[in-house]
Amino acid sequence: MDMRNISKEELKEHLADLYEEYETFKSMNRSLDMSRGKPGSIQLKLSGQILEQKYMGNFLSKSGVDCRNYGLLDGIDECKSIFSELLEVEKKNIIIFGNSSLNVMFDYISQCMLFGASGCTPWCKLDKVRFLCPVPGYDRHFSICELFGIEMINIPFKADGPDMDMIEELVKNESVKGVFCVPKYSNPNGITYSDEVVRRFAALRPAAEDFRVIWDNAYFVHPLYDEDDTLLNIFEACKEYGTGDHFIEVVSTSKITFPGSGVAVLAASDENIAEIKTRMTIQTIGHDKMNMLRHAHFFKDANGVHEHMKLHADIVRPKFELILDAFEKYLGGKGIAEWTNPRGGYFISLNVMNGCAKKVVNLCKEAGVTLTGAGATFPYGKDPDDRNIRIAPTYPSIDDLSLAVEILCVCIKIACYEKILIEKCE
Amino acid sequence: MDMRNISKEELKEHLADLYEEYETFKSMNRSLDMSRGKPGSIQLKLSGQILEQKYMGNFLSKSGVDCRNYGLLDGIDECKSIFSELLEVEKKNIIIFGNSSLNVMFDYISQCMLFGASGCTPWCKLDKVRFLCPVPGYDRHFSICELFGIEMINIPFKADGPDMDMIEELVKNESVKGVFCVPKYSNPNGITYSDEVVRRFAALRPAAEDFRVIWDNAYFVHPLYDEDDTLLNIFEACKEYGTGDHFIEVVSTSKITFPGSGVAVLAASDENIAEIKTRMTIQTIGHDKMNMLRHAHFFKDANGVHEHMKLHADIVRPKFELILDAFEKYLGGKGIAEWTNPRGGYFISLNVMNGCAKKVVNLCKEAGVTLTGAGATFPYGKDPDDRNIRIAPTYPSIDDLSLAVEILCVCIKIACYEKILIEKCE
Repeated sequence: MDMRNISKEELKEHLADLYEEYETFKSMNRSLDMSRGKPGSIQLKLSGQILEQKYMGNFLSKSGVDCRNYGLLDGIDECKSIFSELLEVEKKNIIIFGNSSLNVMFDYISQCMLFGASGCTPWCKLDKVRFLCPVPGYDRHFSICELFGIEMINIPFKADGPDMDMIEELVKNESVKGVFCVPKYSNPNGITYSDEVVRRFAALRPAAEDFRVIWDNAYFVHPLYDEDDTLLNIFEACKEYGTGDHFIEVVSTSKITFPGSGVAVLAASDENIAEIKTRMTIQTIGHDKMNMLRHAHFFKDANGVHEHMKLHADIVRPKFELILDAFEKYLGGKGIAEWTNPRGGYFISLNVMNGCAKKVVNLCKEAGVTLTGAGATFPYGKDPDDRNIRIAPTYPSIDDLSLAVEILCVCIKIACYEKILIEKCE
Repeated sequence: MDMRNISKEELKEHLADLYEEYETFKSMNRSLDMSRGKPGSIQLKLSGQILEQKYMGNFLSKSGVDCRNYGLLDGIDECKSIFSELLEVEKKNIIIFGNSSLNVMFDYISQCMLFGASGCTPWCKLDKVRFLCPVPGYDRHFSICELFGIEMINIPFKADGPDMDMIEELVKNESVKGVFCVPKYSNPNGITYSDEVVRRFAALRPAAEDFRVIWDNAYFVHPLYDEDDTLLNIFEACKEYGTGDHFIEVVSTSKITFPGSGVAVLAASDENIAEIKTRMTIQTIGHDKMNMLRHAHFFKDANGVHEHMKLHADIVRPKFELILDAFEKYLGGKGIAEWTNPRGGYFISLNVMNGCAKKVVNLCKEAGVTLTGAGATFPYGKDPDDRNIRIAPTYPSIDDLSLAVEILCVCIKIACYEKILIEKCE
């Protein structure tokens, strides 16, 4: 029953019960964390073999390179092979980096600022640099833009990806230099861009020659179900339009093996790879090849990665379903919240009534449940409707999660019912 | 006997013999590499235990952090402890990074360019940024400056460090923003800065408030003999003058455990650490803590590192001595070359007669011996006297090194004798 249609008196009764429930939860003095997309420890065990002698003791790459020593700027071949197969990108268009794709993105933008891209004026020399940001999105993308003084423009999501009409219009302005996006199982709404959206990205004719889309394919092998969403290969799509230079794709094994001890990968056009390598020779002598080798030996090939990810899915899927079932049970049909039903990735996007997200997050915090800060999914931390909350189900145990979502739902009800009541009284 | 004083005829006879020797070497078709400061494979074996199960299987830090997962931006405590002890710097002034101190330096300069240091104008907004470069020096330092458009000024070396009179004078100019240096067992001349030089660095009163000395202490635990050179702790020296903000110290285990799979460390003042961390939270979620943990377990404490380095010294010392003995035997007293006698580090600096270095390197190359390119030890690759050659004895086996240095000495004699002869004929 839609709670916006019931009487003030009934609302007050509901609230009285909810306040009681809330106090009970508070008195439990629990500390539950649903704030970040962090794998749970059972997931980490799946990759334990990487640390075993049979993988660690080996230090010669297939081509005979001693991976303990200096050399091989762009990574070992067997690691490139796996990602080449996974991303359907030629090995020559792949660079294997260190442990963090975030760092790769930061560094790429930093170099656009200082040196420019495609031979154009360095962005730091321009009066204004703007990026388009599909919202809700990933807070760390927005932080990078904010640090570099890049002005962010919110692009709302449609059912199959960002609003492409809006993007096509905005890229006509030369100060719009790029887009940050997560095209598959998007953070936080779990949407995978449709073929049409990918093709429209590929077909973009931006005024800026140095336009760059950071195609952060963080959840590229992270389905929750046997049937995986299909994301069109952006570089294939670009071939028709000759626009491959506009795209920088990054992935990592942070949520495949170990967050912080995985490998990150960049895929790009010949021209971009050449430009990146020119500076990379000055930046470093090379990344951790021993870790690359361990990863290559552990997975063997792309199929090895897919099989491994099924084990992750078996652990993560029940956590997602637990949250979604609880939402349906406690919030369904009440007209106070809506949420996404992701088929992969790490997050659920929850929209509560406008103006209630901050309050929900604060109520949760006081009751011992840490959520991602309200507003975090928007540039500058400002959700114009104060309604979006990112839910990260992976880290807590099933038991903790079960309690956390109950608390969350009570908090949502309190915040929204109070709002309805106030509106009714005005 | 000084070859500059012998007759043309005698010189010609010597050269005839040398040409014959040279042809013999060429016909051996060998491929010997003395170009880079790369540990030999016997050295790499010293750290093999790091890859064994007992170190790899462990993933909990002393404080209970699961090192496989995200978290701990600035590194694990047990790793900080070791470097705190080694560098005599408090743990709060230390950050543990990824595998490359070169990358840390690159990134630091990059951030000075974009964001400025000590709240001053970002360097990319200034008309001119200049760095002082003690020469001969490390080519990768110079490449960083060159890439960022930082103008380099050569500072000659004295017996105990760079010419401090010159540095004290030049820092009065506000466009001089810093110095790149290797204060201990300097690359390539093996000089350790005297206490006086370190104190004069600490006492510098540069016009630029955002003046930064990149104190690349790459060979801080790399003596060749039991008696280690002593480098004054720069941060201690700074206390008297309140100049600690001017110094960014970096070290790594690239030449302690594995090049490319070690850990890098930055030490700096409270203010600089705070500034670096503010941006680091946006750059990355953290570096490879599993690798930090392995290193911490393997070494246990600072003494563990020193003991380990003695094993390295036992391998490297004979290689240095072989080179130095050969120089003395083949070149001694001939007035055509002089060289340093390092007590640690990775290099010997060799000066041949002015105008002969490039020729020597080319002759060597044709005879199968790869040396660091002539000029590499100077900014812009330009040795004004074309005389300096960096010798890197660590990578080849003793047998290969023995042959390589013989070939090198023949090449030096040919290049220099020809020069003397031409001068005599003019």
